[in-house]
Amino acid sequence: MSDNANDLMSLCKRRGFIWPSFELYGGVAGMYDYGPLGCALRNNIVDVWRSIYKGREGFVEIDSETVGPREIFKASGHVDEFADLITYCKECQAPFRADHMVKEFYDNPDVLTPKQLEEAFVKHNIRCLECGGELGPVEEFNLMFKTTIGPGSARVGYLRPETAQGIFVNFPNLYRYNREKLPLGVIQTGRSYRNEIAPRQGMIRMREFNQMEVELFVDPEDKDWARFPDIAGEYIDLLPNTGDETIRITVGEAVEKGIIANKVLAYFVYTTKQLLTRLGIDPARLRFRQHLQDEMAHYAADCWDAEVLLSYGWTEITGIADRGCWDLSRHAEFSGTELKHFKRFDEPREVTVTKIKAKHKLLGPAFKTKAKAIAAAMESMSPSDVKDGHLTVDIDGEKVDVSDEFFEVAEVTEKVTGERVVPHVIEPSHGLDRIFYSVLEHAFSYDAEKDYTVMHLVPEVAPIKVGVFPLMEKDGLDTLAMSIYEKIHTHRVEAYYDGSGTIGKRYARMDEVGTPWCITVDYDSLEDGTVTIRDRDTTEQKRIKIDDAARIVGELLEGKDFASI
Amino acid sequence: MSDNANDLMSLCKRRGFIWPSFELYGGVAGMYDYGPLGCALRNNIVDVWRSIYKGREGFVEIDSETVGPREIFKASGHVDEFADLITYCKECQAPFRADHMVKEFYDNPDVLTPKQLEEAFVKHNIRCLECGGELGPVEEFNLMFKTTIGPGSARVGYLRPETAQGIFVNFPNLYRYNREKLPLGVIQTGRSYRNEIAPRQGMIRMREFNQMEVELFVDPEDKDWARFPDIAGEYIDLLPNTGDETIRITVGEAVEKGIIANKVLAYFVYTTKQLLTRLGIDPARLRFRQHLQDEMAHYAADCWDAEVLLSYGWTEITGIADRGCWDLSRHAEFSGTELKHFKRFDEPREVTVTKIKAKHKLLGPAFKTKAKAIAAAMESMSPSDVKDGHLTVDIDGEKVDVSDEFFEVAEVTEKVTGERVVPHVIEPSHGLDRIFYSVLEHAFSYDAEKDYTVMHLVPEVAPIKVGVFPLMEKDGLDTLAMSIYEKIHTHRVEAYYDGSGTIGKRYARMDEVGTPWCITVDYDSLEDGTVTIRDRDTTEQKRIKIDDAARIVGELLEGKDFASI
Repeated sequence: MSDNANDLMSLCKRRGFIWPSFELYGGVAGMYDYGPLGCALRNNIVDVWRSIYKGREGFVEIDSETVGPREIFKASGHVDEFADLITYCKECQAPFRADHMVKEFYDNPDVLTPKQLEEAFVKHNIRCLECGGELGPVEEFNLMFKTTIGPGSARVGYLRPETAQGIFVNFPNLYRYNREKLPLGVIQTGRSYRNEIAPRQGMIRMREFNQMEVELFVDPEDKDWARFPDIAGEYIDLLPNTGDETIRITVGEAVEKGIIANKVLAYFVYTTKQLLTRLGIDPARLRFRQHLQDEMAHYAADCWDAEVLLSYGWTEITGIADRGCWDLSRHAEFSGTELKHFKRFDEPREVTVTKIKAKHKLLGPAFKTKAKAIAAAMESMSPSDVKDGHLTVDIDGEKVDVSDEFFEVAEVTEKVTGERVVPHVIEPSHGLDRIFYSVLEHAFSYDAEKDYTVMHLVPEVAPIKVGVFPLMEKDGLDTLAMSIYEKIHTHRVEAYYDGSGTIGKRYARMDEVGTPWCITVDYDSLEDGTVTIRDRDTTEQKRIKIDDAARIVGELLEGKDFASI
Repeated sequence: MSDNANDLMSLCKRRGFIWPSFELYGGVAGMYDYGPLGCALRNNIVDVWRSIYKGREGFVEIDSETVGPREIFKASGHVDEFADLITYCKECQAPFRADHMVKEFYDNPDVLTPKQLEEAFVKHNIRCLECGGELGPVEEFNLMFKTTIGPGSARVGYLRPETAQGIFVNFPNLYRYNREKLPLGVIQTGRSYRNEIAPRQGMIRMREFNQMEVELFVDPEDKDWARFPDIAGEYIDLLPNTGDETIRITVGEAVEKGIIANKVLAYFVYTTKQLLTRLGIDPARLRFRQHLQDEMAHYAADCWDAEVLLSYGWTEITGIADRGCWDLSRHAEFSGTELKHFKRFDEPREVTVTKIKAKHKLLGPAFKTKAKAIAAAMESMSPSDVKDGHLTVDIDGEKVDVSDEFFEVAEVTEKVTGERVVPHVIEPSHGLDRIFYSVLEHAFSYDAEKDYTVMHLVPEVAPIKVGVFPLMEKDGLDTLAMSIYEKIHTHRVEAYYDGSGTIGKRYARMDEVGTPWCITVDYDSLEDGTVTIRDRDTTEQKRIKIDDAARIVGELLEGKDFASI
């Protein structure tokens, strides 16, 4: 970790943004709790995400269970493929992620096979980091937390490795909710789990983490997006997999030139830029990197990572992928349930199909009262059901054999009104903890000369919006300040009353946690009913009427310029 | 389940409030997903809870991890005591909760021992519900989901059975955040887990459930609450454990008569009533039942359950307890860390203590340059360290033996500024899913004659606030309706555009999911710029200007009477 990250993490712990989990009992690597300021900041981030996806785009939100039975994750591929390669020290049994042990010697160590890794250990004389012992064989370690559901012959279950599966397995419910129409946009936020072998890098690699995922189901033949023209002229920094240079290009041009696969994917790449910059991510430290061909899942049509420059280097915080029909096809296969959209044609189309046609005239005399039922049963069957010129039909439980003198296999022309297609999935998947951390790192500014920290959080996400101070805690200044605090403070607009220490110290405490404005009650306030309000970023101060304070804070939060109040 | 509960659950599934989890794969008992309407309703409930605890009371919110190491739950008592008694069929191995098998024969079957239960099986000839086989021995089944954290010599972990422990183990961080002051109020919402043996009763007994917990740390000698006088005169329905009659009494009187143990507990019992009735729980079907003496945890000073009358009978949806010093004492004991509040006295107090006093005059000549260090070391020791008239002090690693000619044990009078006390915990613990279900059941109204359902949700929690309809989807009515929808719809004020079916059907669809108002665009709208707005509960309709629609919806949401718009 760099000094910057260390300073920031230490501030986060000291001031109550995040705390290592279970510290009282020695802690658990890769787990963090959100303290009061962190929880508020994180909830504000989620709120911005919701305002874009639920508000602007009209997507629906669901919340599904975090423990799931094995079948789900067998279908999703996680049981077989969600694994890292592990090696244990032969002496002290310490576990290590095998590819991390050789990362100085290979550009892309995660493509090495277990055998290649074992050979690399020998070749480069790589030993246990704890005791210097010899490393053992390299094997797969599945990263899902395993548990059992219920007692007795208990069902194996896993903690979900992503929130996405909870959306996919609810596709039939969601499709019905959306009245069998596409596009169908669904969002979910919540915990996911990844039982890391040896988590490091603070909040970047957590065993229990938070996601904000979006699954947009679209017609596979219609990857346009109604609002695309609104943003086609906007610029974005792309690092395509065809080169190694970041290019600045409009979203429209990126699609025209075939750099981004289609308009709907490009729209949500740009939406991700809107989200992240609105949260306070520095656009100069944000780029979209296309997955390399060998990095991309085989089913993905295209995939882009939003990467931000942190003290850890360029770090993925969101992935935006066109996952094709993969997810729904897999769950259809494993569950035995068709997961398709009925796509109505604009005009009914004539199609030629091969069908069984009953010879009604012959059936009547031969089968009497059963003739009608036999005809219907035969016509519902497919030509492939004909065996040696015979069909066996089931009439009220009775098997009836019918030879081909009673039916013909004929080509018929039919009018069809639509077809059934497997929707494609566009997935903007956000790592909430990573976004949280990035927002803090990009907001963090430390002046070593003055030993002074300012967290330049955008007001919309700042955990505390206003500090309220009495100049002194006496002469009624404190009760007046408290009454202003109570007028402003709600669970959405959090205020913080602080009466202790010098005013300078109190400003410093608020600057350090990113509070955009502070209100101070002084002796003039008692005379003329005004208070000072101070802007964090400019340190400019103005006097405003106490009666206007709550309204002004509301206007500032809606984006009004401090200079104009 | 009663017919009412069945009808409601079927509506919930059909309309997208809740869905049985993993239905595509046959489902898992005791697990439900929140669909679009359910997720919105649940988030609205959480928001009201936050507005009371974060907003009005100024408590802080945290979010801690859901997987925890064994030590935590050893300290909390869950490893040893969070269990139900289980029995398996000897023939088919089906598991059953032992006490549930005999509930027809005993008033309070959960107090029976395993042996008593086994005898009861024989006496009442109780057999397997699946195959009629003989039931096996009764044993304990721990209800925590178990997993392992990390690879190798992995640490045993559990999914938390309650969110509360994440607050308790963060007490040192929270206490520092609160600048070492009491009271300290902390809230947390999130998933908890209970690996039920055989979950039934729909959302009342879920394996994965949601809580909203509040832990208020108070001075053990000060169980008053500043805002208590505001509500002392309010009435509440109590069922004390001294009788079997519900009494209606003011909160103040309940404390004066010693029915509720203290003011702060009584305040939060009443706060729970405020919360639940604001969410739409019918006050006539809400009571507070005091735990029976043998039902109350041995450490609890007092405990009340908020119970609502549902089709399942009276059901606990919130517990409000004075847990004394139990939680912090246990974690202090198990972690070896003192978890106390330094309570400053108003005035320093004189106390008499027994102390070691060095005889400086004798020490100097005898120990030369070391005399000072020895004196300081001795005076920091306790009289109990004296062995056979000697003290052994450690001076820079060297052990020095000092006999009692160089010190005395004397009674001295000292001024102390405060004392260290273990805070007591007041805990209002809310079962979010049960509240969610209760809100729906109390809002649900079905007119069998008209075959018509209205869900009378209070506007604040209704998932959709406004339906927007064009009379016909043509002649520009649809684009006008859509533009009104877009003006009103945000992620906090959800609107729903519906253009299909008769207007009557569209009203019915919105009534069924509790949408308080519907706006219809008709041909007059094109002429005069007005639309009709309809009130769900009265079915009254008014014409309002299109330009006023968003403002009027905002005012209605803030409680304005429909008649007065």
